[in-house]
Amino acid sequence: VVSLLTDYGLDDGFVGALHSVLRRRLPKVPIVDLTHGVAAQDVRAGSLALRRVAPYLAPGVVVAVVDPGVGSARRAVAVATADVVFVGPDNGLLVPAVEALGGATQAVELADRGYWLEAPGPTFAGRDIFAPAAAELAAGRGLADLGSAIAPASLARLPAPVARRRQDGSLETEVTWVDRYGNIHLAAGPGDLSPSPVPGDAVSVSRSRVAVEVAEVAEGVAEVAEGVAEPRTWPARVARTFSDLAPGQLGLVVDSYGCLDLCLFGTSAAEQLGIREQDLVVLSPT
Amino acid sequence: VVSLLTDYGLDDGFVGALHSVLRRRLPKVPIVDLTHGVAAQDVRAGSLALRRVAPYLAPGVVVAVVDPGVGSARRAVAVATADVVFVGPDNGLLVPAVEALGGATQAVELADRGYWLEAPGPTFAGRDIFAPAAAELAAGRGLADLGSAIAPASLARLPAPVARRRQDGSLETEVTWVDRYGNIHLAAGPGDLSPSPVPGDAVSVSRSRVAVEVAEVAEGVAEVAEGVAEPRTWPARVARTFSDLAPGQLGLVVDSYGCLDLCLFGTSAAEQLGIREQDLVVLSPT
Amino acid sequence: VVSLLTDYGLDDGFVGALHSVLRRRLPKVPIVDLTHGVAAQDVRAGSLALRRVAPYLAPGVVVAVVDPGVGSARRAVAVATADVVFVGPDNGLLVPAVEALGGATQAVELADRGYWLEAPGPTFAGRDIFAPAAAELAAGRGLADLGSAIAPASLARLPAPVARRRQDGSLETEVTWVDRYGNIHLAAGPGDLSPSPVPGDAVSVSRSRVAVEVAEVAEGVAEVAEGVAEPRTWPARVARTFSDLAPGQLGLVVDSYGCLDLCLFGTSAAEQLGIREQDLVVLSPT
Repeated sequence: VVSLLTDYGLDDGFVGALHSVLRRRLPKVPIVDLTHGVAAQDVRAGSLALRRVAPYLAPGVVVAVVDPGVGSARRAVAVATADVVFVGPDNGLLVPAVEALGGATQAVELADRGYWLEAPGPTFAGRDIFAPAAAELAAGRGLADLGSAIAPASLARLPAPVARRRQDGSLETEVTWVDRYGNIHLAAGPGDLSPSPVPGDAVSVSRSRVAVEVAEVAEGVAEVAEGVAEPRTWPARVARTFSDLAPGQLGLVVDSYGCLDLCLFGTSAAEQLGIREQDLVVLSPT
Repeated sequence: VVSLLTDYGLDDGFVGALHSVLRRRLPKVPIVDLTHGVAAQDVRAGSLALRRVAPYLAPGVVVAVVDPGVGSARRAVAVATADVVFVGPDNGLLVPAVEALGGATQAVELADRGYWLEAPGPTFAGRDIFAPAAAELAAGRGLADLGSAIAPASLARLPAPVARRRQDGSLETEVTWVDRYGNIHLAAGPGDLSPSPVPGDAVSVSRSRVAVEVAEVAEGVAEVAEGVAEPRTWPARVARTFSDLAPGQLGLVVDSYGCLDLCLFGTSAAEQLGIREQDLVVLSPT
Repeated sequence: VVSLLTDYGLDDGFVGALHSVLRRRLPKVPIVDLTHGVAAQDVRAGSLALRRVAPYLAPGVVVAVVDPGVGSARRAVAVATADVVFVGPDNGLLVPAVEALGGATQAVELADRGYWLEAPGPTFAGRDIFAPAAAELAAGRGLADLGSAIAPASLARLPAPVARRRQDGSLETEVTWVDRYGNIHLAAGPGDLSPSPVPGDAVSVSRSRVAVEVAEVAEGVAEVAEGVAEPRTWPARVARTFSDLAPGQLGLVVDSYGCLDLCLFGTSAAEQLGIREQDLVVLSPT
C-alpha cells in the first residue's frame, strides 16, 4: 500500500499527477489518500496530521509532502520504521510519525537521480522524486538502493506543541488542530490535568496566547506573534461525548486520539470562541 | 467493493483513517468514495445523497457516516439489502437508500465489541466501529456475526421531503439539493405536475417557505423556521437540457435522478434566485 | 487504468456515481482521480489541466468531463492516441492533451446507445454515457465498436492561450493557471523570452489585459472583456526555485511543466498582485 499526505489540495491536478506516476509503474498498487488538505506550506500542521494517523497506517510506503523548500538544498529522504517507510522532505514533517511508530530503523537521502523523473523545473518533487522513489520501494527495491545512508538523528525536527503544568496547578496547552466541526483539539491529554478529569467536572478555560498570522514564513513554519489575549474566560464541563452537552454548553472531551478537545454540540466551538490553531489556552479545574 | 459516504470533509484526515483501517485488513479491497462533502452533521442531506446514488452502487458494503450522536446511545447498525449491506448510525441516514433498493432483508445492531478498534475516546465511530465492521463483512463474515438482530422496522427514519399538490392545482415542493452548478433540485418529479410538463411549457415559480438557519440542531436535523417568503414570482420555461435555455431564462428540467430541477444556463440559479436547500417552492403551470 | 478529470467537485456525489458505474462493471479496475476541481463549466481551464498531466497519464482510458452543453447536439466522443483513449464531450476539452500525446490515431462518436445507461434526464452524461463507454473500453471492447468513426480533424478546438513577442522585444503572455499556492503560471516558456532567462536576471512585469468576469458564457468559454489594466509595473528576479527568493521579492521561475511562473516565497503572488487567470502580462528584460 502507498499512502499519501500532502498540502496539494485537490483542485490543481498535483495529486492526480502523483497517482499517475505511481500507476504507470505499478497499475494495481493500492493507494490511500490520507489527506491533501493540509494548509498550504504548513509543515507543522502536516506533521501533526501525519502523527495522528500513524497508528492506523497500512504497512507499506507513505509519501508525505509539505515542502516550501522544494528544489533547495533541503534533503529529500526516505525513513524506514518497522512496518512503514516514509518518503518526503527533511523539514520536520516526518519525524513525529516516525517516532510514534517506534523510531527509524534506517534512513537515506534520495540522492540517486537514476529513478527521478526529468522535469523542466525543480518545483514538483512529489511527482519527480518522491512518487518515483515510493514506486521503487513498493516494487520491492531496497531502501539502501535509493541513495546514501544518513543518521536518523540528523533529521530535522520541529518544536513540540506546548503542554505544560503551571505553578497554580492549571494547564497551559496549544491548539494543535481545529477540525471540520469546529472542535478545538489540544496538545495535552487528560493525564496532563490534575486531578484527572471525570465527566461532570467543571473546568475554566481562558486564552493565554493569540496566534497572529504572519505574512512571512521561513521554511514553512509560520511565526506566531505573542499577541495579547483578550481577557476572556469560559466555563466548560467535562463530558464523554458531544451529545452529552446541553445546547451552548462548552465541553471538554477526550478525543479519538487521546487528546483534550473543547467542543460544542452541533456547532463550531472554534467559531463561537474565536479560537484558532496555535493559540494557547489555559485549563483550570474549578 | 466498499463504498463510503460521510460528512468528514477531506481536510482532516478522517477519510484517510477509514481507508487505512480498511486496507490494513484487506489491502486490495476496491474502495469507492461516494462523497465526503455532506454538510457537517446534516443527516438529512446525507440521507438524500445516499438515496440518489443508491441505484448505481457497486455490490458490496456501504459505510455511511453522518453522526452527530456519535458515542451516545444511538445504535450502530448494519442493514442488508439484496446486493448491498449498509453500515452506519441508526439516525435516519440509511433508510431511504435501503428502501430504494427493495428494503432490508436483515439488520443487526453492531453490539459485538470484538472487532471494534480500541480508542481513547468514543467520537470517531467511523474509524473504530463502522470501518472495522465493513472490513469484516468484506472479508466474508456474516452479518449475524457482528451483533444482535434487530427489526428493520425499528430503524429511525426522517420525515420525507415535501411534495404536495395544492387545491389550486399548483405543486408545492421542497428544495432537496443545490448542486455545485447552482441547480435547484426539487423533491417532486414531473409526474407530480398536472398536466405533465412538456418542453416549451410556461411555469410560474414562487417561494412559500424560507429555510432559516437555526443555530441549535437536535440529532443533526436543523430545524427549519417557517420564515416569511418575500412575495416574488419568477417565470420559467420547461426544457430538456440546460443549453436549450436562452441567457437569463429560468428553466425547469427533469434531472438525472427523475426530479424537477430549476436551472439557468451557465450560471447558478440558486444564487440568482436566492433559494436554498429546505426552502419550499410553488410551481404553477400558466 | 481509468483516469478521471471533471468539474464535478467532490461535494455532490457526481464523482461517486462515476466510480460506482465503473466498479459495477469492473470491480478491480484501477481508477485515478486526476482532479474534479476544474472551475465549474470552464472548458478552457479543464483542457489546460488535462494538457498538463498528459505526459504522466497511466496507459488506459481517460474520462474528461467539463460539459456545459450536456444533453445538446454537441457530440460525445472517444479519441485514441498511442497509449491513452480519451472519452468526453467534443467541445475542445480533449484536443490539447490528444495533441501532446502525438495526436489522434482514431476517433468515434459515441452514438451506439446500447451501452448507455437509461436515465430520466439527459444532464449527467458522465454517469450515463462516458463512464459506461470507458468501462467497455477498459473491459477490452474496441473503439470502433462504440460508435461511428469521425475525422480527428473535425474535433472542436479552443483558441490557444496567448504567448507573443512584441516589437519592442517584450513578451506578452496569458495567465493560464493560478495554483493553490498563488503561483501565476503563464502560457509562455523560457524560450519565448529573449535573451533566455538566467537566475539573477531582472525582469519587469506589467499587465496588459484584465480578465473581467462575464456572467453569460457560451459553450462554456467565458468571454474575456478587454478591461483597462491599471498601469502598474512590478520588478521581478529570475530564480531557480521559490526559496531562492528574498521575502516579498517577486520571482520568475520555470515551472514543473516548462512554463514561466511568477511567484513569491511562502505567500500568494496572485493575491499580492491582484492577477487572475486569463489576464495578460508583459515581461520585459531590464
